[in-house]
Amino acid sequence: MTGSSSMHPLDQATALENLDGSSLRGQFPYAYANMVGPYGGVIAATLLNAVLTHPERQGEPVAMTVNFAAPMAEAAYAVVPKVSRTNRSTQHWTLELCQDEAVVATATVFLAVRRDSWTGADTAMPEVPSPSHIEPLDTRGYMAWVQNYQMRMVQGGFDPSGQTGEQDNALTRMWVRDHPPRPLDFLSLMAISDSFFPRVFIRRQQRMPAGTVSMTTYFHADSEMLRRQGDRDILAEARGGRYYRNYYDQDAELWSSDGDLLATTHQIAYFKG
Amino acid sequence: MTGSSSMHPLDQATALENLDGSSLRGQFPYAYANMVGPYGGVIAATLLNAVLTHPERQGEPVAMTVNFAAPMAEAAYAVVPKVSRTNRSTQHWTLELCQDEAVVATATVFLAVRRDSWTGADTAMPEVPSPSHIEPLDTRGYMAWVQNYQMRMVQGGFDPSGQTGEQDNALTRMWVRDHPPRPLDFLSLMAISDSFFPRVFIRRQQRMPAGTVSMTTYFHADSEMLRRQGDRDILAEARGGRYYRNYYDQDAELWSSDGDLLATTHQIAYFKG
Repeated sequence: MTGSSSMHPLDQATALENLDGSSLRGQFPYAYANMVGPYGGVIAATLLNAVLTHPERQGEPVAMTVNFAAPMAEAAYAVVPKVSRTNRSTQHWTLELCQDEAVVATATVFLAVRRDSWTGADTAMPEVPSPSHIEPLDTRGYMAWVQNYQMRMVQGGFDPSGQTGEQDNALTRMWVRDHPPRPLDFLSLMAISDSFFPRVFIRRQQRMPAGTVSMTTYFHADSEMLRRQGDRDILAEARGGRYYRNYYDQDAELWSSDGDLLATTHQIAYFKG
Repeated sequence: MTGSSSMHPLDQATALENLDGSSLRGQFPYAYANMVGPYGGVIAATLLNAVLTHPERQGEPVAMTVNFAAPMAEAAYAVVPKVSRTNRSTQHWTLELCQDEAVVATATVFLAVRRDSWTGADTAMPEVPSPSHIEPLDTRGYMAWVQNYQMRMVQGGFDPSGQTGEQDNALTRMWVRDHPPRPLDFLSLMAISDSFFPRVFIRRQQRMPAGTVSMTTYFHADSEMLRRQGDRDILAEARGGRYYRNYYDQDAELWSSDGDLLATTHQIAYFKG
């Protein structure tokens, strides 16, 4: 499964080769390189891909948690997906990503065959200017992974000049989509869950060592909702919680351009400073 | 490890017997029985207990995710904790809870040896009346597990009379602690993460089949903060996200009586109706 130049970078990065029926092999995704190892969102999407392409898969993703245990080395890696339990309409998976027999990441994925039910939402999409009114972030000089996204900052961006002081909170709102454009699917939605800059950078307006340790995404979108979204911009809002003794948490929502909540996503991250 | 009447119900419920060095045995916690199987919070606390009492444990819990794959039968169960990765100051665990070789729950736990860092919070504890100004919920007639908590509803309770109509949102604020009182530790904090009534009951003010599928808690409290809290009331706030095709999500915060954020907790739950 060699990446061809006609494939989208996300499809190249998340591609897995079936080794022996029980484990899969992936390649270090250089196009999504981050400060140390690859962008966590693309690791998460790759693990999700191992489930979604598995012959035993039943249903669509509803919840996924990924734990980043160590930086991925610039080498091939193995993914071992395991069905923990299959019920009538739900399925639980556990996954490991390893290099040289050592665990680099673990994940759990919950799938369900959804049925119709009462529908509601407790919050509405924030009112913000449409994407066409906001210049995209100039990603030259950013880490490789950022260049695979188009981000239009509504508020709460990072000022690399160092001229902006500490903020009261780390609220960010941005329009985001894959770059080049790619119709939304569960893989790209999972990857975009991790596309916010570290909350501690936004709150303090300074860079420091920081990285996601554990990330959980709840999918409210089903295939039909993803199809309707297509390759349009997603409104992404993230907030910080508490920053205490090397760890802080982030809550975020991803809204469709029609105002439907596609996913909510949470993470805890390490920081030093 | 037979439960003695002098032990707190939570300590009895979360007790595990070491079988063979690699797996542990627990007993169905009748004192925390729920509609189907036991209260999820006590299953989560029991899995956390398997890590915290393990000889290889390093550090204090920072993040935990539990996936409820099937109802626990009224019988003994086995817990298998596995160290996925130990780093210099962090450790990742993966756990399975099984009955008759079938998986009932899976979990991941992330531990860290925390060090001092910059500290901040993006939000403050909501201003609410003190616990002494609010009558505790009369738990007679509720499921067994509820009777192990003292809950004082500030807003967003459930009206069992059926006389309250659908609400605009499912915001709940309550003071909660173990009953009888028990000094706060990571086990009780993990259990209290799940102590909110289902958001869909609060939003619609009606009962229907509902249950947590996956729950993630981020601990901001360290041992010292837990010690300061002692057995005082915790201010717990929960909100609903989206309710769509059988699943909805909940975000919540647990605040110390001194106004420190002890934990943030998220879950996705099934509902039918």
